[in-house]
Amino acid sequence: MKTIQVGLIGFGVIGSGVVRILEESRELISRRLGAELRLKKIADLDIDTDRGVPVSREQLTTDVNDILEDPEIDIVIELMGGYEPARTFVLKALENGKHVVSANKALLSKHGDEIFTVVEEKNLAVGYEASVGGAIPIIRSLREAFAANPITLIEGIVNGTANYILSRMSDGSCDFDSALREAQEKGFAEADPTFDIEGIDSAHKIAILSSLAFGTRVDADKILVEGISTIGREDIQSAAELGFRIKLLAVSKFNGESVDVRVHPAMLPKDHPMASINGVLNAVRVCDQWMEENVLVGHGAGSLPTGSAVVGDVIEIARGILSGSSGRIPPQSFPKALRRDLPLLDRDDIRSAYFLRFKVKDQPGVLSTLSGILGSHAISIESVLQKERSAQGQGVPLMIMTHTAKEKDIRQALSKISELECIDEKPVLIRVEK
Amino acid sequence: MKTIQVGLIGFGVIGSGVVRILEESRELISRRLGAELRLKKIADLDIDTDRGVPVSREQLTTDVNDILEDPEIDIVIELMGGYEPARTFVLKALENGKHVVSANKALLSKHGDEIFTVVEEKNLAVGYEASVGGAIPIIRSLREAFAANPITLIEGIVNGTANYILSRMSDGSCDFDSALREAQEKGFAEADPTFDIEGIDSAHKIAILSSLAFGTRVDADKILVEGISTIGREDIQSAAELGFRIKLLAVSKFNGESVDVRVHPAMLPKDHPMASINGVLNAVRVCDQWMEENVLVGHGAGSLPTGSAVVGDVIEIARGILSGSSGRIPPQSFPKALRRDLPLLDRDDIRSAYFLRFKVKDQPGVLSTLSGILGSHAISIESVLQKERSAQGQGVPLMIMTHTAKEKDIRQALSKISELECIDEKPVLIRVEK
Repeated sequence: MKTIQVGLIGFGVIGSGVVRILEESRELISRRLGAELRLKKIADLDIDTDRGVPVSREQLTTDVNDILEDPEIDIVIELMGGYEPARTFVLKALENGKHVVSANKALLSKHGDEIFTVVEEKNLAVGYEASVGGAIPIIRSLREAFAANPITLIEGIVNGTANYILSRMSDGSCDFDSALREAQEKGFAEADPTFDIEGIDSAHKIAILSSLAFGTRVDADKILVEGISTIGREDIQSAAELGFRIKLLAVSKFNGESVDVRVHPAMLPKDHPMASINGVLNAVRVCDQWMEENVLVGHGAGSLPTGSAVVGDVIEIARGILSGSSGRIPPQSFPKALRRDLPLLDRDDIRSAYFLRFKVKDQPGVLSTLSGILGSHAISIESVLQKERSAQGQGVPLMIMTHTAKEKDIRQALSKISELECIDEKPVLIRVEK
Repeated sequence: MKTIQVGLIGFGVIGSGVVRILEESRELISRRLGAELRLKKIADLDIDTDRGVPVSREQLTTDVNDILEDPEIDIVIELMGGYEPARTFVLKALENGKHVVSANKALLSKHGDEIFTVVEEKNLAVGYEASVGGAIPIIRSLREAFAANPITLIEGIVNGTANYILSRMSDGSCDFDSALREAQEKGFAEADPTFDIEGIDSAHKIAILSSLAFGTRVDADKILVEGISTIGREDIQSAAELGFRIKLLAVSKFNGESVDVRVHPAMLPKDHPMASINGVLNAVRVCDQWMEENVLVGHGAGSLPTGSAVVGDVIEIARGILSGSSGRIPPQSFPKALRRDLPLLDRDDIRSAYFLRFKVKDQPGVLSTLSGILGSHAISIESVLQKERSAQGQGVPLMIMTHTAKEKDIRQALSKISELECIDEKPVLIRVEK
C-alpha cells in the first residue's frame, strides 16, 4: 500500500483533533484511499505539553522547515491561525510544491488571492473546508455541487460563540454579559471574544463563501459588520413577541450587478430555516433559481468537527495525488482568469426591513413625531410595540417595525430622531430578513 | 475554449430541466470550467412533444446509438429511469469509454455493483448525486467530505411525495386518501404512487447511501420496508398530543458488526432535526463521533433541483477530463477491493421504542390484559393514551408507547394480542426514533 506523508503546523485544539482522527480513523481512511496517510511531522513552538493524543517524540519539531523542506511530505496542514507567520509558511509550502490544507479563515479572507494564485500557477491543490462552518461541507458544495447554480443568496450562522450567546439570551434567563461569561466557562468563547461577538470572524467567512459563489473578490474589511454586543434582552423579548428570533447573520446577495455582503444581528421569522439553529450549531443556506434552497446544518467549531473537515480535505488531496489530478478544481471554483470584479453594493443602497427600538420620554405626541420623521424619509411603518411605563419614571421603550426601506433613509431618519429632546438613548437598529 | 460534449438519454421531466440549466447557466458553467459544455444529442422515443426548452431538430434522435457510439461524446447522462433498457445503455456507454451521470436510484440500487465495477475497471467516472435527495449534496458529502468519519447513523426523509402527504395530514385537514389525491393534482405524486408511498423508492435511496457510508453492499429488496398507507389521522393526532411528528424515515445504522437498514413511518420528537422537514422538502442527517451530526435539507425532487444536481455531476466529470484525472474517486467511495460484506441486522434483533394503536372493545380489564402480554414479552410501557368512547359504541382507540424493545418480542406480543376477543382491528405499530 502506498503512503502519503503529511506535515502539521500548529498543534493546538484543532491540530490535536486532526492527530486523533488520523490515528483512530486510520483503517477507515486507508480503506477509502487505498493508501496510507502518515503524519510525519508536527511543528509547534510548544512540543512539551501533553495534548492527550498519540504522538512520538520524533514526530514533533519546533522548526517548521522540518516540514516545509522535507521532500517526502506531500501535504501541509496549516492550523496556526492568524495572518503571520501562517501566510509565509503557506506560501513557502506551495513554493516547495506541497499541497496545503488550512482552517485559517482570517488568512484566507485577507491573503486568499495571493495564496490561491500560487496554487493555480503551480497546479497544486488547496483545501479549506474547515475554514467556514467546521464540519459543514459548504466550501465543497459551493466549489462542486452548486457549480451550475446561479446563486443569489447565501445566509449563514457561522459563528458558534455568537449563536450560543444569542440562544442563551433567547432561552430567557441571560443578559449578554452573563451569556458571554457562560460561553467562556464552557470553552465556547475565547478569553478575548472580540472577533466572534463583533462579527469579524463571520465577516471573514462570508467573504470566503461569496468569493466561491460569485467568482469575485470580497474584502471583509469593506463590508458592513455589526456585532451582537448592543443586543439587549428587551430586543430578544420584543422579537419573540413579534414572532421573530435574533441571530448573528452573515448575508451575501447577488443581484446580477453588485454583491450585497454584510454581517449583523438579524430578526428572522420563527419559521425561517435559520431561526431554529441554536447553541453552537452553524448553518448555511444557499438559494438560487434551480435548486431553490439548500440548508446545511452542523457543528461549526470544536476540535473534532473541524478536525474531521481538515482530514476530509487531506483525503481529497491524497486521492488527487494518487490519480495524478492535482489542480482539478480551481481553488476558488472559478479559474483566476475567469473571475471578475463585482462592485460591493453601496451601504446606502442596502434595502431591508428594520426593527427600531427607542427609549422615549413618557409624554404625548412622541409616536406622532417619530412616525412623522420616518414618513418624511419614505419609511413606512408595519407595526408599533409600546411597552408599559418603567417604574422609575425613566424613558419607556418604543419599538417600531418598518416595511422595506433604504439604509440611507433609515440612517438619516435615525440621525434626526436621535437629536430629539424626547429621545433618551441612542436608538437600536436590527435588520429584519423575511 | 475547449468543448466537452454531452449526450442525454431520456427527455422527460428531469431531462428537460437539464437542457434548460445547460442553456441558461451556460456562461456560468463556462466560467467555472474554463471550457464549454455542449449538449450534442438527446435520445428519446418521443422527439416531437415540445418540452418548452430550446433544442434544435438536429440534437434530437430516437436512436440511442447516436449517443452511445459517437466518439465525440465524453459524458452520457441517463435519465430514463427503470431497470431496463437503462442498465444496458449505461453499460454500453461505459464499454465505449464514456463517463456516466445518472439519477436512476432504482437502477443503481439494484445494478450498482455491476455498473460500478465496470466504471472502476475502465478508470471512468460516474456521478449520481441526483439519485438521492435531488439537489441535496449528500452523495458527494459521503464520498468526500465525510470520508474520515466513521458514520454510525444516516437518517433520511428522501421521498417528497410521502413527506408531502404526511405533512398535509399533520396540518390537520386531510386523511391519507385526500392528501394523496391533492399530491397527485399538484404533480407531487405519480398516477401510480406505489413506489413512493410504500417506501420502495426510499429503500433504493437508503441502500445507495448505506453502501457509500459503510463500504458494503445493501440489497434494497432484503431490508425492512413499510409504507405510509396504514397511517391514520388518529395516529398523526396522537403523535402530536405526545409531542411527536410522523415521518417516512429511511434509517441506516452501523454498530461495528452489522448494518440495520430500514424504511418505515417513524415518530420523531418535535424538536428532532428531521421533525420540521415538511412538504416536498427532503433531508438527510449523518452522525458520527467526530462531527456529531450534519443535516442537509433541500428539494429532493422536481425538474430543476434534480436537474441542477445532474449538471453539477457533469461539471465535476468535465473538470476531471480537463485535468486528466478520471477515476480519482471510487464510485462508491471505497475501492471495490477494499469494500466488505457486512451482514444486515436480523429483523428480529432491531431495537426501537414503539407506538402501538389498538381498537379495543369498551370493557373492563382490557388494558390490564394488554399490558400483561407486553410485560411477559419483556416490553415495558412508557405511556398510555386512552381516547374517549366512540359515539356508535364501536371499539375505542387505545394507544401505548413502549420503552426500547426488540422487534421480535413486539411482533410476538402483537400476534398474541391480535387473537384476543377484545381487539377489534389489526393493531397499528409505529417505531419511535428518539
